Amino acid sequence: MCGIVGIVGKSDVNLQLYDALTMLQHRGQDAAGIVTCDGDRLNQQKANGLVRDVFRARHMQRLTGNFGIGHVRYPTAGSSGPALAQPFYVNSPYGIAMAHNGNLTNVKEVSEEIFQQDLRHINTDSDSEVLLNVFAHELHKQHKLQPKAEDIFTAMRAVHKRVRGGYACVAMIVGYGVVAFRDPNGIRPLVYGKRETDQGTEYMVASESVALDVLGYTLVRDVAPGECLYIELDGTLHSEQCAENPQLRPCIFEHVYFARPDSIMDGVSVHKARLRQGEHLAEKILRERPDHDIDVVIPIPDSSRSAGQMVAHRLGVKFREGLVKNRYIGRTFIMPGQKQRKKSVRQKLNPIELEFRGKNVLLVDDSIVRGTTCKQIIQMARDAGANKVYFASAAPAVKYPNVYGIDMPSATELVAHGRTTEEIREEIGADWLIYQDLPDLIVSSGEGNTEIKQFENSVFDGEYITGDVTEEYLHSLHTARNDNAKESKGKQSPM
Amino acid sequence: MCGIVGIVGKSDVNLQLYDALTMLQHRGQDAAGIVTCDGDRLNQQKANGLVRDVFRARHMQRLTGNFGIGHVRYPTAGSSGPALAQPFYVNSPYGIAMAHNGNLTNVKEVSEEIFQQDLRHINTDSDSEVLLNVFAHELHKQHKLQPKAEDIFTAMRAVHKRVRGGYACVAMIVGYGVVAFRDPNGIRPLVYGKRETDQGTEYMVASESVALDVLGYTLVRDVAPGECLYIELDGTLHSEQCAENPQLRPCIFEHVYFARPDSIMDGVSVHKARLRQGEHLAEKILRERPDHDIDVVIPIPDSSRSAGQMVAHRLGVKFREGLVKNRYIGRTFIMPGQKQRKKSVRQKLNPIELEFRGKNVLLVDDSIVRGTTCKQIIQMARDAGANKVYFASAAPAVKYPNVYGIDMPSATELVAHGRTTEEIREEIGADWLIYQDLPDLIVSSGEGNTEIKQFENSVFDGEYITGDVTEEYLHSLHTARNDNAKESKGKQSPM
Amino acid sequence: MCGIVGIVGKSDVNLQLYDALTMLQHRGQDAAGIVTCDGDRLNQQKANGLVRDVFRARHMQRLTGNFGIGHVRYPTAGSSGPALAQPFYVNSPYGIAMAHNGNLTNVKEVSEEIFQQDLRHINTDSDSEVLLNVFAHELHKQHKLQPKAEDIFTAMRAVHKRVRGGYACVAMIVGYGVVAFRDPNGIRPLVYGKRETDQGTEYMVASESVALDVLGYTLVRDVAPGECLYIELDGTLHSEQCAENPQLRPCIFEHVYFARPDSIMDGVSVHKARLRQGEHLAEKILRERPDHDIDVVIPIPDSSRSAGQMVAHRLGVKFREGLVKNRYIGRTFIMPGQKQRKKSVRQKLNPIELEFRGKNVLLVDDSIVRGTTCKQIIQMARDAGANKVYFASAAPAVKYPNVYGIDMPSATELVAHGRTTEEIREEIGADWLIYQDLPDLIVSSGEGNTEIKQFENSVFDGEYITGDVTEEYLHSLHTARNDNAKESKGKQSPM
Amino acid sequence: MCGIVGIVGKSDVNLQLYDALTMLQHRGQDAAGIVTCDGDRLNQQKANGLVRDVFRARHMQRLTGNFGIGHVRYPTAGSSGPALAQPFYVNSPYGIAMAHNGNLTNVKEVSEEIFQQDLRHINTDSDSEVLLNVFAHELHKQHKLQPKAEDIFTAMRAVHKRVRGGYACVAMIVGYGVVAFRDPNGIRPLVYGKRETDQGTEYMVASESVALDVLGYTLVRDVAPGECLYIELDGTLHSEQCAENPQLRPCIFEHVYFARPDSIMDGVSVHKARLRQGEHLAEKILRERPDHDIDVVIPIPDSSRSAGQMVAHRLGVKFREGLVKNRYIGRTFIMPGQKQRKKSVRQKLNPIELEFRGKNVLLVDDSIVRGTTCKQIIQMARDAGANKVYFASAAPAVKYPNVYGIDMPSATELVAHGRTTEEIREEIGADWLIYQDLPDLIVSSGEGNTEIKQFENSVFDGEYITGDVTEEYLHSLHTARNDNAKESKGKQSPM
Repeated sequence: MCGIVGIVGKSDVNLQLYDALTMLQHRGQDAAGIVTCDGDRLNQQKANGLVRDVFRARHMQRLTGNFGIGHVRYPTAGSSGPALAQPFYVNSPYGIAMAHNGNLTNVKEVSEEIFQQDLRHINTDSDSEVLLNVFAHELHKQHKLQPKAEDIFTAMRAVHKRVRGGYACVAMIVGYGVVAFRDPNGIRPLVYGKRETDQGTEYMVASESVALDVLGYTLVRDVAPGECLYIELDGTLHSEQCAENPQLRPCIFEHVYFARPDSIMDGVSVHKARLRQGEHLAEKILRERPDHDIDVVIPIPDSSRSAGQMVAHRLGVKFREGLVKNRYIGRTFIMPGQKQRKKSVRQKLNPIELEFRGKNVLLVDDSIVRGTTCKQIIQMARDAGANKVYFASAAPAVKYPNVYGIDMPSATELVAHGRTTEEIREEIGADWLIYQDLPDLIVSSGEGNTEIKQFENSVFDGEYITGDVTEEYLHSLHTARNDNAKESKGKQSPM
Repeated sequence: MCGIVGIVGKSDVNLQLYDALTMLQHRGQDAAGIVTCDGDRLNQQKANGLVRDVFRARHMQRLTGNFGIGHVRYPTAGSSGPALAQPFYVNSPYGIAMAHNGNLTNVKEVSEEIFQQDLRHINTDSDSEVLLNVFAHELHKQHKLQPKAEDIFTAMRAVHKRVRGGYACVAMIVGYGVVAFRDPNGIRPLVYGKRETDQGTEYMVASESVALDVLGYTLVRDVAPGECLYIELDGTLHSEQCAENPQLRPCIFEHVYFARPDSIMDGVSVHKARLRQGEHLAEKILRERPDHDIDVVIPIPDSSRSAGQMVAHRLGVKFREGLVKNRYIGRTFIMPGQKQRKKSVRQKLNPIELEFRGKNVLLVDDSIVRGTTCKQIIQMARDAGANKVYFASAAPAVKYPNVYGIDMPSATELVAHGRTTEEIREEIGADWLIYQDLPDLIVSSGEGNTEIKQFENSVFDGEYITGDVTEEYLHSLHTARNDNAKESKGKQSPM
Repeated sequence: MCGIVGIVGKSDVNLQLYDALTMLQHRGQDAAGIVTCDGDRLNQQKANGLVRDVFRARHMQRLTGNFGIGHVRYPTAGSSGPALAQPFYVNSPYGIAMAHNGNLTNVKEVSEEIFQQDLRHINTDSDSEVLLNVFAHELHKQHKLQPKAEDIFTAMRAVHKRVRGGYACVAMIVGYGVVAFRDPNGIRPLVYGKRETDQGTEYMVASESVALDVLGYTLVRDVAPGECLYIELDGTLHSEQCAENPQLRPCIFEHVYFARPDSIMDGVSVHKARLRQGEHLAEKILRERPDHDIDVVIPIPDSSRSAGQMVAHRLGVKFREGLVKNRYIGRTFIMPGQKQRKKSVRQKLNPIELEFRGKNVLLVDDSIVRGTTCKQIIQMARDAGANKVYFASAAPAVKYPNVYGIDMPSATELVAHGRTTEEIREEIGADWLIYQDLPDLIVSSGEGNTEIKQFENSVFDGEYITGDVTEEYLHSLHTARNDNAKESKGKQSPM
Repeated sequence: MCGIVGIVGKSDVNLQLYDALTMLQHRGQDAAGIVTCDGDRLNQQKANGLVRDVFRARHMQRLTGNFGIGHVRYPTAGSSGPALAQPFYVNSPYGIAMAHNGNLTNVKEVSEEIFQQDLRHINTDSDSEVLLNVFAHELHKQHKLQPKAEDIFTAMRAVHKRVRGGYACVAMIVGYGVVAFRDPNGIRPLVYGKRETDQGTEYMVASESVALDVLGYTLVRDVAPGECLYIELDGTLHSEQCAENPQLRPCIFEHVYFARPDSIMDGVSVHKARLRQGEHLAEKILRERPDHDIDVVIPIPDSSRSAGQMVAHRLGVKFREGLVKNRYIGRTFIMPGQKQRKKSVRQKLNPIELEFRGKNVLLVDDSIVRGTTCKQIIQMARDAGANKVYFASAAPAVKYPNVYGIDMPSATELVAHGRTTEEIREEIGADWLIYQDLPDLIVSSGEGNTEIKQFENSVFDGEYITGDVTEEYLHSLHTARNDNAKESKGKQSPM
């Protein structure tokens, strides 16, 4: 997962891009980058690390220019290493930089094609570099000295035909403006807004609405699936639908875990969706055990707090902050002659004993992925004296890998893969395990915007909406992620 | 405020000290340091920054030795700068390092005395350096080639006679062991615990019990006011009361804001105390307006969550996470030709509009200090469409500076100083302002341990329990803090 | 001035490139970079600083691959800043990286042309980026999936037609090999050599032969003016003359100052040339004043030592190391409230008084550029008690700017520009000033290789051999260099 | 070997100390430190690295105060590691910082004594820390609130009685002034000078006169053996002889290799001494082989240039710079799967072939220590085509370790230890080996100041003038230096 932002402003946009990336930092803490355009020159700074560490005063001073784009990166398979920080850049045609959130599922074929047609060298394993080169190639084909909106849209139509997967992108064309687009299913989120200034209207495109809010932009709307926006340097905004059969099928996992609760995505308040998740979960609990003996509901901070509160409220039992999160986690050192000591979950999450001792506790989390952490928390609850430990997941069982840009483990590492709920319960050591039902999860989000007919739910049901995800592809993903687990170097981007 | 830890173990203690400092990081994020003792040599690493940044593998490798101490520093007036990272060290007698949490109120006199008696140079404004030298001087006076417990206790008795204020300390004597002590009023917290290993018993002394818990130590008890512990290298533990009229009067502000909720301090669960604060606050609200029109209770994260939940529960209204905290705050850059733009509170705390729009909202915070942040939050609530904005503080009005080690602004910067509740309400722009009553706050904490007859409440009532705090002293503090205030950071969250 | 190197080896070439750059460091201390090719991937590291600071173990580990190129940069007008470290890279076609030593005199026109023909964006003021894009464009035009030697030579022929100036370059084509070429006048130096290993023959191309020597390569020969070498990954070497009227007219200033004395350039030993400069200079001295009263010859270290020795020998007077060079020069700090203190020349060069006191001293330097340093040294000699201070320059008066890659000040900053020798003597404060005559300088170098019919002497006589250097161009250069001059560093010593 | 400096000025001395350390950098490139005194506060910055790297603007801003001291460190046995950068500091009495050049030979005894008498903990293996504590202890014994010159001299008399070895030191007493002293034999050099300003006279004490010269100080004289200077903050200078039988016996190796040629040491011009070394060496060559067949004399740069010129002049043969020194040496990387490749001498020193080919070459070096480098250079000369390779050393055979502060290998690593000249010649592979005779070396230096009756020559004749150097001590030194060769960590200084 990553966060992206693009701004066409009326004065230097460096500080705005910086602040916007700060608001999107939860989408990726691995690397950050900004590229701006000043006249016919592009300025950039990107590196591994948090936004606050990557950009120093000397960088900001160099990042002049009234339009630009930014990126925060989540470490995914094959994407780590300092040289893979985005935005990426090609100098032909025009000079184009691009920041990408998502994942392409036909990278290999496209990468070969693009070399044979245009001799374009792809230097990394990053699908973002491929996407940039496809777009650059399609734009170059029209060979205009000055690209017009129609040229860009023509290129974009070709891009959608060539690539598959989930992608939300912002690109910057040196000297001209910012391009933003979203895949034909709208899997990854993208919104835009505007702000009036004395010098005219400024536009911002971003992964989440919260970046708009905090910087004083008014949300205009989501970028539509398949739609392409082109905002010229002078502030003229063009937009066109560039996909053949666009259909809004956004990733439901954003609502479960990834997005900030104060964001509105495709018309749905994430906070509200999570409250509704809690309601539905409570109802399932009551259906399963109308006369349950739960004494207290304790959320696993931070993302399950909203759902947890609602569960407690519906059940009519106490809601308590019984687990304290430590936000200052240290490194794990390996000293000579000592065994590696795994940092215990407890350093991150410590139980307040008196909320556990002698009680029947319902722990609520947003989802269960590998199951290892939740197993440790359940044990911690028992050690703290809990009588019974129940566990509720606001999302259904995660059984399949994600291929559209969320860095989930491969299937075999998912605790729910190939296991029944009872088997999972046993594996994690809970006395009772309640999963949200998928229809309930869908309703929780869908209620916010009835125009969404379908969500991208593949991690729960294995249905990949792009229709082209083969066993072979999943296998190669599995290998990459496993290789990556051992050593996370990858190759370098040239610029 | 600072965090301290000392360990006498059976093998290298560097990793334990590191992990313990990580658990105490909420008590100070400004600087960190560790000193260990290996044979007759002392090893150290200290610098400005978070624990995770100050210690690298190469430092840890050097920090050999079976006993040592550590410190995390909160930036207080006159205490910043890399040269002031603790522990401090003097080489005479024996080589002694010390880490200190608190503040002495007669530093100036003691500092001059110590120079005249022993020609000891104090190079900083730090009272910690003074305290170390007083202890060193008193120990030196006995001129023993090998100090025994009784020598240390004799020195300690002299220390308590010479210095005034609040102090909890750990010291390390090269070649011998770890000393821990607490001022005669027990203003600052200090606990100790033990852990059995195959090689024998290991001891840890720390500011908060949570450090013991997480590292697998069992809490033995709080160090008593005036008590001195001396744990020899071989694990022999000595203890003695070294003050003349010790009396437990711990700082109540630890329970309001500073301590982690999962800590037990002087027998009181901080979490429980905060829940009780919420109960009492709710009762006051109901007393003041039995037919209030509050629609929703919204906590200001993170420290007021427990109290806020209890308020909501007692009032029988909804409790909602309506403010989203951004944990990734960036720098403030000043660009050439631009005015300094103050980071808005909103970058740190963004409202979820639908929890505010059209509602009568009760915001709950742990306390109100300068009032500037709370004023901005109230305005933010109004901008988000709140009908009425009420504000409740789980602590009474903060009217006086703290002189025992909490870095509060001087009196004139406190919004409540010299103002009535009504005037404060107007200043911060609330529609209704409810402060906890001091007796209720005291009861909230005192209920946890009825042996505490009195708390250190000076920030609320101006009564300084050491009885020696003059106007002149407060004035000098004011000056120091104002000099410092130019670059000050305001209140920092413990979590 | 810069140093370049390219290697096609039989195993990883990173360490060889590193060592070679170390041997070429005297040609540029401002920035350094290496790019290697491993399979179809390019790896790079470049940054501001000395070779020993730019490359760390973690970088070297990443720089895998059996062929690659490297660059050290001298700071020239408009070339500083980390973003301008070479090699530069374009991904289309094939992925090409290039390292360049020299300067193009028709950058502006070519840069516009290349955009209009191929929409290639040039993001910097660097002529190196332009040269790379011209080459890339010409190679792309042939649209071969796999470029053959003939394709590269065809592209090179077009390059020589389009660009003017002095340039020696190495380029790397991802997956294929290394290309090396020199401008049609051979202004900038370039040699190549080979080394036999068990796996086969390895080739190195470098700015100076000393890099070959030290790494165990045998010098094959200089790359001819206009010639292009293409060394394939498998070690096959192709070469072809690609210029229409190539003629060897190398820069004579390399022999005066820039090159290492142990290099052989275009068949001339730099050391020998400098000895001959000394002989000719001595003869002129004897012609001017057959009964001179010189007591001692003192060189200004390090570059004038060879010439100085020869002068002393011919004159039959003592030669003494009377000036001691400090190789550890510190920064210049500006303290608040203090005026900037210029580092005195004396910190770099201190006189041994007893070699000056009461004597008639002849100082020998390789050349006089701005005249400010030499004025200070003459004053220093007087302060040290010299009776008379004579000054001899092994090169003629430097009167014109260099446009082929040596970073000299613009004309108005040259002490000799528009001044007679007598006026210069007065300006620098010498009692006698002797300049080498240009024909003598030419003979000093030309004697080493009688096939060189002409040298590039423009800094002495204003004759620019490419025939296209206009007043307008010189003016723009002047402006660029003056902008830069604010923070400029003056002449840097190669050793 | 190390360099030290102390200044008592009329305004901030930070920049002067910085510049002075830059002038003394040749005496130590391993670490650097400055301590200044401003009112009753001491400011310091010290770290591993060159002066230009250790001090940044932010450090200089902190280093306020009108007096202070500085140090540059040469890595010696047991002295490396960042924590051993000098000056060292103790806070009792007064606050004293000290910078030391030399080595004590009775560290172990003194260290134990000082603990037993005063419980002073010595945390490192550094004799400098011991020396500081002895001085501090002796000064403390007099227990004066304000130390007068006489108190300091009394302390100094005691210091000279307790410690043995070679030492030149500057110390700073917080609030009072700078103390400088030299051991009773004057083994290590120390000079002082003064400078008049509008505010009064400023004093500087330094290891070498060149630091005085360049900063505009006039050399007053050398500090006498056993003498102590005390310069008060107000500029009053006191001096007294504090040793019982002082006698000037300076280290002759300073004249051979260590000192800068432009320094005057104990009245002797180092440059002149080296010229005389050359004369005497030439005479020996002529005595040994009156009809020698030497074609050319080639110095091994940089330190043997003066002697080499004189040799050539006396022999009447050519003198040529036939070896080119590369001043930019890179790191040695160890790549995975590769053997460590030793950097060849050739990367540092490359022969100009035509000065060697077919000639009988006399190489001149200042001295021969391990013999390994000189063996490689001789081989290099042969590879470059030399007919015969003769080798002359301006110093006699180095056969014994140095115990007074020069970091020489232990005896077994010295090529001359236990070997005849003929055996050494064979070992290094020369065709003829000429060593300076010790009496000639002594005359070369002694001629400059006939008041020096004796030099410290122990590395040549094994006579240790302090009369207390036992086999056991040499053995322990041997062990330390060998241990150190493997791993150079050492222990840490506490401040």
